[in-house]
Amino acid sequence: MGYGVVVQKDGRLRALDYGTFTSKAGDPMEGRLAVLFKQVTAVVRKWKPDSAAMEELFFAKNVKTAMAVAQARGVALLACGLEGVPVTEYRPLGIKQAVAGFGGADKQQIQKMVKLLLGLAEVPKPDDTADALAVAITHAQCSGNRLPSIAVLGAKPGKPGKSFSAYRL
Amino acid sequence: MGYGVVVQKDGRLRALDYGTFTSKAGDPMEGRLAVLFKQVTAVVRKWKPDSAAMEELFFAKNVKTAMAVAQARGVALLACGLEGVPVTEYRPLGIKQAVAGFGGADKQQIQKMVKLLLGLAEVPKPDDTADALAVAITHAQCSGNRLPSIAVLGAKPGKPGKSFSAYRL
Repeated sequence: MGYGVVVQKDGRLRALDYGTFTSKAGDPMEGRLAVLFKQVTAVVRKWKPDSAAMEELFFAKNVKTAMAVAQARGVALLACGLEGVPVTEYRPLGIKQAVAGFGGADKQQIQKMVKLLLGLAEVPKPDDTADALAVAITHAQCSGNRLPSIAVLGAKPGKPGKSFSAYRL
Repeated sequence: MGYGVVVQKDGRLRALDYGTFTSKAGDPMEGRLAVLFKQVTAVVRKWKPDSAAMEELFFAKNVKTAMAVAQARGVALLACGLEGVPVTEYRPLGIKQAVAGFGGADKQQIQKMVKLLLGLAEVPKPDDTADALAVAITHAQCSGNRLPSIAVLGAKPGKPGKSFSAYRL
């Protein structure tokens, strides 16, 4: 699960922190979820976001993978809930529209816009980290002046052991 | 989410505790998951199970419901993981075979066997609580003498706001 932290100041967005939460693929699920929970909680406590955002999850072909992703997502939602951080969910189409201006944008276009909007030197890696930053940008834009220069935590759950994201506006 | 706690002593199973964990249907998901997490953690800490069991989840028609169930399931797995309780998963067919003796058993037959095997005066309500007790019985039988008179916690996640289960063998 990738993560990122974004802050909004003077009308500009800036990435404070982003990266990936990982757990060992061979470990029992309850142990992997405990590792993830501690990592997400640490980021939430460090950046103390006032708000969080996650991409809505639609199940794909592989039921076993979708199940594992949903469980990890539940743990990320819980970590926010226990710290009193409200979470807003966005559909993939809405994220593409907010970040790139049109719903038909592809992965590369989204990544370039994330790099541009946050003033980064390079496109954040892996893909789930860039996607998470896209969710944060969407949340910042949709929050308007309801979130003037405060913290926002967002998440993009990837395949098991992939990524989660946190942001600060 | 229904829950139950079962203990095994002198070759017999006994239900120590069972019931339902609930959260408010209208509340935000992160808040509902936080409420569930606290309830599951309280039961795990009270009964200190050495082992836990959950039914494997197979997604049904309604994706939104399946998603919510998987998220709640992730939180229940996490609560076990953070308390150091290993979780074993069982397929519905395996549970029916273990409890009723054949995989084609229906809901009423499973409930009657749960009542009989645990020496209960009545069938536990709601259905998810009885189902959870069935998972615990399966786990007890499959553990053989590896779990002599120690605690087991199991879970049967129901529809959102329905049930979770914990057992003691």
